Amino acid sequence: MARIDLNGDMGESFGVYRLGNDEAMMDYLTSVNIACGFHAGDPLVMRKTVQMAIKKGVAIGAHPGFPDLFGFGRRAMSITREEAYAYVVYQIGALLAFVRAEGGKMTHVKPHGALYNLAAKDVSLAEAIAQAVYDVDPTLILYGLAGSQLIAAGKKVGLRTASEVFADRTYQRDGSLTPRNAPQSLITDEQEAVAQVIKMVNEGYVRTLEGIDVPIEAETVCIHGDGPNALAFAKTLYEALQQEGIDIRSLA
Amino acid sequence: MARIDLNGDMGESFGVYRLGNDEAMMDYLTSVNIACGFHAGDPLVMRKTVQMAIKKGVAIGAHPGFPDLFGFGRRAMSITREEAYAYVVYQIGALLAFVRAEGGKMTHVKPHGALYNLAAKDVSLAEAIAQAVYDVDPTLILYGLAGSQLIAAGKKVGLRTASEVFADRTYQRDGSLTPRNAPQSLITDEQEAVAQVIKMVNEGYVRTLEGIDVPIEAETVCIHGDGPNALAFAKTLYEALQQEGIDIRSLA
Amino acid sequence: MARIDLNGDMGESFGVYRLGNDEAMMDYLTSVNIACGFHAGDPLVMRKTVQMAIKKGVAIGAHPGFPDLFGFGRRAMSITREEAYAYVVYQIGALLAFVRAEGGKMTHVKPHGALYNLAAKDVSLAEAIAQAVYDVDPTLILYGLAGSQLIAAGKKVGLRTASEVFADRTYQRDGSLTPRNAPQSLITDEQEAVAQVIKMVNEGYVRTLEGIDVPIEAETVCIHGDGPNALAFAKTLYEALQQEGIDIRSLA
Amino acid sequence: MARIDLNGDMGESFGVYRLGNDEAMMDYLTSVNIACGFHAGDPLVMRKTVQMAIKKGVAIGAHPGFPDLFGFGRRAMSITREEAYAYVVYQIGALLAFVRAEGGKMTHVKPHGALYNLAAKDVSLAEAIAQAVYDVDPTLILYGLAGSQLIAAGKKVGLRTASEVFADRTYQRDGSLTPRNAPQSLITDEQEAVAQVIKMVNEGYVRTLEGIDVPIEAETVCIHGDGPNALAFAKTLYEALQQEGIDIRSLA
Repeated sequence: MARIDLNGDMGESFGVYRLGNDEAMMDYLTSVNIACGFHAGDPLVMRKTVQMAIKKGVAIGAHPGFPDLFGFGRRAMSITREEAYAYVVYQIGALLAFVRAEGGKMTHVKPHGALYNLAAKDVSLAEAIAQAVYDVDPTLILYGLAGSQLIAAGKKVGLRTASEVFADRTYQRDGSLTPRNAPQSLITDEQEAVAQVIKMVNEGYVRTLEGIDVPIEAETVCIHGDGPNALAFAKTLYEALQQEGIDIRSLA
Repeated sequence: MARIDLNGDMGESFGVYRLGNDEAMMDYLTSVNIACGFHAGDPLVMRKTVQMAIKKGVAIGAHPGFPDLFGFGRRAMSITREEAYAYVVYQIGALLAFVRAEGGKMTHVKPHGALYNLAAKDVSLAEAIAQAVYDVDPTLILYGLAGSQLIAAGKKVGLRTASEVFADRTYQRDGSLTPRNAPQSLITDEQEAVAQVIKMVNEGYVRTLEGIDVPIEAETVCIHGDGPNALAFAKTLYEALQQEGIDIRSLA
Repeated sequence: MARIDLNGDMGESFGVYRLGNDEAMMDYLTSVNIACGFHAGDPLVMRKTVQMAIKKGVAIGAHPGFPDLFGFGRRAMSITREEAYAYVVYQIGALLAFVRAEGGKMTHVKPHGALYNLAAKDVSLAEAIAQAVYDVDPTLILYGLAGSQLIAAGKKVGLRTASEVFADRTYQRDGSLTPRNAPQSLITDEQEAVAQVIKMVNEGYVRTLEGIDVPIEAETVCIHGDGPNALAFAKTLYEALQQEGIDIRSLA
Repeated sequence: MARIDLNGDMGESFGVYRLGNDEAMMDYLTSVNIACGFHAGDPLVMRKTVQMAIKKGVAIGAHPGFPDLFGFGRRAMSITREEAYAYVVYQIGALLAFVRAEGGKMTHVKPHGALYNLAAKDVSLAEAIAQAVYDVDPTLILYGLAGSQLIAAGKKVGLRTASEVFADRTYQRDGSLTPRNAPQSLITDEQEAVAQVIKMVNEGYVRTLEGIDVPIEAETVCIHGDGPNALAFAKTLYEALQQEGIDIRSLA
């Protein structure tokens, strides 16, 4: 039976600021990636989000990002391999302590924002991140963009990896995402987005903008938590996958 | 045989800034408390300090502080019990990940600066910190001021504790430190400071300013790393304790 | 004719996080206090808020706070006189540059949160803040709690001051606010809150919980921007004051 | 008579951390660029550095950088034009307030580290910075790399500019600096470095690595404050320029 994990970024509130609808979203997710204080999140938010994830029974992962609260970790920064390694170790550890304190288990790590995007292409950065994850706990699963350098680096270091696909992004002939600034990079029709996921999960192929089917590994789908329709889309996708008889569950 | 642990605060550099003489100091210490990024330290510094501590064979502890880089964690902040708990869990976890990544072992936690001082007197804060330490790892040893609420809270929650004494501070009739702003709060004569430590370790008593001997539990001595004579004093104390036949070693 | 200024805290968004309903609130305010990045706000938010204030024609003030994003500046910190002075100078300057760049004018300064509350009672802190405001621009108006040390310090240093009163807080016999943790500290009935303001403005008296009228100087009313009824109450108060024939305008 | 300004980066200490030898260096400088808290510096340090600069009679400028304390502003960040504008306005304003409070005058702005380097080549970033400086105060002088986009953007917006040259860096045929990672990018011989400056100031030419003289505008020389020989070199250069009869003074 075809199988898929649905993951979402959580714990992105900070101080008095609230972001996202974590509790409701978790009903349609099997894995959550929790911000660790560098781009979003703070110790109180991390604790509450871990408690919520345990209660909801979703798999818990760390979501390390660039040290950039101003920019929510979405801005590329030129950091060294050593810096990337240390930032990832630090953030995983911080979240891991909350997971342990609550009697839970951390199953995975997914880099956030610009760190995720850069690590998809930059071998050196990807290797530093993969090594950091491995060194903290070699049983952690490394989430990365399907076909990316991050997935390759994870496999190389000996980590289990999870290839991530997107419901609402179009793909190019080489299996990579159409750049956001290009026309037609986004799929705005919900049924089309759902169909793309089902095809990827059931067939292992994605249809590019040119109409060609290219192979893609789809182990987990990134579910956005922001935007006015985020919750509704998550529910729609979840139910459509269920109807298709796809096994929706975390990878751990 | 009388026994004592000598602990020092380490890893207080940050970014391009260097502070302390960690490597040299470690020769005269048996335990180090490593800053975790809230009041000092950063991920790169934490990693290097952990590597150094492992190489030198000293016991490794976390040194969580207030989130206050401007003030180096030395300024009191009115935080809630929940905030104290979460800040301590976060910081222990961050350091723990580096210790794990380097194949070492974390043995203890010592709160830093204003957090240490407030937790000596504030039961609620002390309990929050002790619970945080316990929840992350119940085998960690909690370092606190001898006779303080922090030590009491640690014992209450079921943690092993380490009562800390000072070589260069005078004590009052109730076993507490003479406040820093009071006259004669500091012992500036090195031989006097050494003698105070030896008496505390060998006899379990400290002589107050009034000349009365009061009982004190001395399990670990705080060795300052800053100041021009810090290294020389550490060496002097270390050698004096050795000559007295006192067993100098970490508590773990 | 009786006269009053209505002030509100603005520009408290940060990065991706949105807080408050600044644009709508400004319709019922004559002065705004804009966060300067220490407890809330960031350079982009500051710029936009200044542009909005200029467009709406409200008086612009700086709203300096403690350097505490985690706690939104609501937590007391033990800072020195020198630190308070420097933090206030820094924050006023940062906002002032945006005001200049947009061709506007800064008219006042109101400390935020815990800094405001501590400066109401702590003479030394109050004097440091007042001196900082004066040194940057002696024509700025210092906003502070009516009857507070901050108002006294402002007058002493030669600043024009604005005594602030609250619509939704009860007062004690000595003219001070009933502490928040005491019973009946808050006025939850909107009409009662409106009536309290009108009495303070028209008569210069406030009725305490014991039913005694005590004199109070009411030059500006603090209008909260958070809470579900904030906007509605601001409108209600504004219109009630207009109907009373009270002149609603900024102090500058 | 040939004329030159000697500028140095100052006020880079932070919290308990000390960096540089500001007071001694100022004896051999005519302009100082003071860090504004984003990459280094804090409000207390800024105040002290401004006081020192006024006492020493050197021209005061703001030294805005990326918001990156971890990396000392030396790491490239992908920020938008709007972000660059707002960050520069904010930082100039913060410093300007200290200058005003101390009765001094701010004369210039020099971007720091990665912001300086990126703005040398990126027209959009350069224009955003130039506009920010202009909008805060159109009489400020914008310091930038000789021949850079930043100098061009400054002139375009109507600012007076100062073309900066380096004593210890070699130049290429197009007048640009030899990249740091290229061989022979640094001039390590002090006399050679001094000779290069004298040639640039007196003749308006620099000799490239290939031995060709190319024209260069040298209005100000960047004097490094770090490194063991910084102070000695500053003195050597200062005295050599004096002996050449070159007029050493600030541009304002």
